[in-house]
Amino acid sequence: MKCGSSVVQQIPEGDTRRRAVCQQCAYIHYENPRIVSGALPVYQDQVLLCKRAIEPRKGYWTLPGGFMELGETMAEAAARETLEEACAQVHIQQLYTLFDVVHAEQVSVFFLADLKEPVFAPGIESEEVRLFSESQIPWEDLAFSTIEETLRRYFQDRVSGHFPTYQLFTPPPIATHPASPSEQ
Amino acid sequence: MKCGSSVVQQIPEGDTRRRAVCQQCAYIHYENPRIVSGALPVYQDQVLLCKRAIEPRKGYWTLPGGFMELGETMAEAAARETLEEACAQVHIQQLYTLFDVVHAEQVSVFFLADLKEPVFAPGIESEEVRLFSESQIPWEDLAFSTIEETLRRYFQDRVSGHFPTYQLFTPPPIATHPASPSEQ
Repeated sequence: MKCGSSVVQQIPEGDTRRRAVCQQCAYIHYENPRIVSGALPVYQDQVLLCKRAIEPRKGYWTLPGGFMELGETMAEAAARETLEEACAQVHIQQLYTLFDVVHAEQVSVFFLADLKEPVFAPGIESEEVRLFSESQIPWEDLAFSTIEETLRRYFQDRVSGHFPTYQLFTPPPIATHPASPSEQ
Repeated sequence: MKCGSSVVQQIPEGDTRRRAVCQQCAYIHYENPRIVSGALPVYQDQVLLCKRAIEPRKGYWTLPGGFMELGETMAEAAARETLEEACAQVHIQQLYTLFDVVHAEQVSVFFLADLKEPVFAPGIESEEVRLFSESQIPWEDLAFSTIEETLRRYFQDRVSGHFPTYQLFTPPPIATHPASPSEQ
């Protein structure tokens, strides 16, 4: 991995699990859950959603988000993904929902964010980007259960104006509602 | 990585960053921040700390915690690490602190946890495990700033009995206080 040589699967000394170990430099490659970070961009009484142009769940609506990269915070990742997918600049406000998505080997987090101006456009991974009021949300055409859960809680909490941080668990999707292991 | 063949660093099509790409099976190896999950085990008015038997920060006190593995939730990871490092069984109560530790390429989370019985012992990565009341905490000998921050907030919040979830940023350690990039 580090040196480019071949790896084999073995249990390193003092460990309990099989890992990919480089036979040249002895580097141990650990596989761990990845963090998906996203934003819930709010403009006045509307929220910004993206229609996915890529699999999984192509054609379904999602909040902008994606895999957190090295060298950035979770909030920075959410803002970067919003710029990439919706060409929109947001100010991150607070951590809102946090999901264990065990079946997809991910932890997903969503931040409440302010969209200062209604300026946005489809990025390369989006077919369409638009603002929705609560009554317009395409509940049947949302890409992932994490998106639905985050939006439902947002509209509930908006009534009181109190937005806690929720720690939640996402069960595997049922068979009639397939999702990909690569992103949830 | 998947097939065991050699990789080279290149920018995959449609991507913006260099990744390790297998020359045999075309598998792209993404490197992303890892999640460290830990517990703050509470027994009556005391908390359980572990003295590290391994680097980094060998000989310093920490909360039990470690890298989240595939196939488990963050809370399960925290309970597993507490069992491994302190031979203690805890009931996880709530997510308490969450840190961006960018310089260490990690996100660290800590859960409040109940230690039902004062039963514990050093695991293989601990020299010593013991309960501390607030006045006994070895503030100068804590392993990481995330540990200190979590403990300080706990003892403050205990006064009111209100424990929110905190989302925090951990700056790089100053030069006179070296920390390893491998765990913070």
